[in-house]
Amino acid sequence: MVTLSKKVDYVRSSPIRKITAILAEARKRKDLISFGGGAPSLPPPQEVVDELADRLSQDCSNSVCYMGTRGIVDLLDLISQDLKKYGKIDVDPRNEIQMTVGGTEGILLSLMATTNQGDEVIIADPTYLGYPEAIKVVNAKPVTFPVYVGEGFQPDVERVKEIITNRTKGIILLSPDNPTGRVLNKDVTKAIVDLAVDHDFWVYSDEVYKHIIYEGEHVWISALPGARERVITMCSLSKEASVPGLRTGYMYGPSEVIDAAEKLKQYVSLCPNTLVQYGLTSFYKGDVKEKYLEYVISVYKSRRDVMLNAIREYLPKAKTVKPYGAFYVFADMQDYIEPTGMGDEEFVMDILKTKDVAIIPGEHFGKNGRRHCRFTFVSEPADRIEIGIKRVAEYLMEKDIIE
Amino acid sequence: MVTLSKKVDYVRSSPIRKITAILAEARKRKDLISFGGGAPSLPPPQEVVDELADRLSQDCSNSVCYMGTRGIVDLLDLISQDLKKYGKIDVDPRNEIQMTVGGTEGILLSLMATTNQGDEVIIADPTYLGYPEAIKVVNAKPVTFPVYVGEGFQPDVERVKEIITNRTKGIILLSPDNPTGRVLNKDVTKAIVDLAVDHDFWVYSDEVYKHIIYEGEHVWISALPGARERVITMCSLSKEASVPGLRTGYMYGPSEVIDAAEKLKQYVSLCPNTLVQYGLTSFYKGDVKEKYLEYVISVYKSRRDVMLNAIREYLPKAKTVKPYGAFYVFADMQDYIEPTGMGDEEFVMDILKTKDVAIIPGEHFGKNGRRHCRFTFVSEPADRIEIGIKRVAEYLMEKDIIE
Repeated sequence: MVTLSKKVDYVRSSPIRKITAILAEARKRKDLISFGGGAPSLPPPQEVVDELADRLSQDCSNSVCYMGTRGIVDLLDLISQDLKKYGKIDVDPRNEIQMTVGGTEGILLSLMATTNQGDEVIIADPTYLGYPEAIKVVNAKPVTFPVYVGEGFQPDVERVKEIITNRTKGIILLSPDNPTGRVLNKDVTKAIVDLAVDHDFWVYSDEVYKHIIYEGEHVWISALPGARERVITMCSLSKEASVPGLRTGYMYGPSEVIDAAEKLKQYVSLCPNTLVQYGLTSFYKGDVKEKYLEYVISVYKSRRDVMLNAIREYLPKAKTVKPYGAFYVFADMQDYIEPTGMGDEEFVMDILKTKDVAIIPGEHFGKNGRRHCRFTFVSEPADRIEIGIKRVAEYLMEKDIIE
Repeated sequence: MVTLSKKVDYVRSSPIRKITAILAEARKRKDLISFGGGAPSLPPPQEVVDELADRLSQDCSNSVCYMGTRGIVDLLDLISQDLKKYGKIDVDPRNEIQMTVGGTEGILLSLMATTNQGDEVIIADPTYLGYPEAIKVVNAKPVTFPVYVGEGFQPDVERVKEIITNRTKGIILLSPDNPTGRVLNKDVTKAIVDLAVDHDFWVYSDEVYKHIIYEGEHVWISALPGARERVITMCSLSKEASVPGLRTGYMYGPSEVIDAAEKLKQYVSLCPNTLVQYGLTSFYKGDVKEKYLEYVISVYKSRRDVMLNAIREYLPKAKTVKPYGAFYVFADMQDYIEPTGMGDEEFVMDILKTKDVAIIPGEHFGKNGRRHCRFTFVSEPADRIEIGIKRVAEYLMEKDIIE
């Protein structure tokens, strides 16, 4: 065989995608309780489903044809109005928004549009595991700063400052965060934007969980002073409309960046899915989005509380903070994993095998995530969340780690 | 603003995507006859539309959730059976197929998976305009060999041989070709595969038009002797199922390449669209595909004949060959454009403005496409095709170029 790209060696396959495959198998044969995925279990808004069906039956040809690379104007207009309504941001729908294949393509396009070989991009450790690999895919270099459970996983601006070099091209911020559930503090965010201004680098703001907030407030980063011309924001419908399989998101930022993203997208995926775009216009009409969010957030919040209480009750030595947003509790499990003598991955796989509970090892999110576990609380109903955490405790009892 | 990537300067925006936008506008106000697009005007198979609607109404949650990056197993199995049926190729559905966002993502992923910075990738001039830019997006270098109307646009193997260097990493073949409609001759294709074997490089076989053939036969390149381990094939449902807006295709090749493509896709678009994959399973069931192709090919063929006859009658000095496949007549219009004193783009834009006929200038497909025009024959019914070509002739009469 002819040789492959060097990329294939140095880009790591996403362990979560592998676990998804294992879970899909496990789900078939057992009473699996999944704290493993990154997707909600609630159905999407019925209005979106109805709109998709209506388009297919009433205007099929126009729903399956090519449309412009940027996105259909109806949807771009609605997104612009939505950003105004929720974030008080003026975003020009014709020049400052690009539709993307979920948040993932938004990250790729924004990095592709702004970095050159060898540029450095700063990320937290731990944070979303796709970032270091996406950075490597575009031939740039990930540089990390640690965040700690004891500090509520908030970035320490001094630690960020220390790793800035003349190759720093940007920093990726994710708020609410995966895996930690941390919602960025406004002052910390402002200080990071100030660093970006002083050192002239980009802020890539991943806001795919922007509406999934239980306490506190989302910081609309591009609305901060000095931010507008150096912030590129990625959003997704996957989390807020519960349609991850429809692969739709958008990015917004300075028109030069969006022009560049559009140009590159022509050779990445050509143009967005026409049918899905039409279907999703209904999410932004009337009070559909508002009502839907109100409903799902209340469900997620109660599930989060159940999980947090269960962890505190049954796994009292797990160190964690209340996640103010997103779908996960991220717990420092050192006191439980160390005594088993196992590696983190071995530990969670053993629980999956013997207790039918799926958890994600924290080390997948960065070396600073070692001895942590990520517990998704949105995929199972409240009663099963409690049963799942009890099963983890039982596992540890059987190993004489919990009395 | 912080600086952008150098890529943004050296990657060219697709002129056809711009023209699509112009056409969308033009279509609103006038009796536009479009020979400009790359999409059929016939509706997709009703079975696909029905399956999409059924999935939404009967199994919505499972249709909008995340699925594996590789693709859903039902569809992968059906595609494998389809490749066996039509191409007599054994392709392992679990290890040798990756679903993609149309043919476009297939091209990107195959180049990303196999090339390093500075590698050279050979392409015809003219050919599909996305190739040079996709090659540049992955930091490789496009190198071209000319094809000529007088040679039926078949590659001359000697000309390919001349441009092979020790940096040659592969060659992209597109058959049937866009813009020329040329179906690769089997002997020529074999000779190119032999070159790839001798010089150890990849063959990227873009077969998005594989079923759109009117005369002759499609060469299933990966089935040729010695080809299997060095051919990566890209396919798309856009052309054969008339669903370009659903953005679905697939690539197949050696398992190492498909593994690499899957890994990279995790950071490009994460996973394929679940709903659309389920919908498209119906295309491969029973005789749906066979009947649909029979119908559309007969319509396209009669439209092609109308256009070819009209060009021969009304534009007798246009040099062209009968396109055996794809959607286009590619004509050398030198004897008509030269006397106008215009550039190629100026010429077609003037026809669009004054005669409401959209044509694509050949120079967009490579410098050897200069003074040619691409006429799409699948987007308009037969009577309008004839009217459109007559309007072009009228335009030339008014300029005293045709008597």
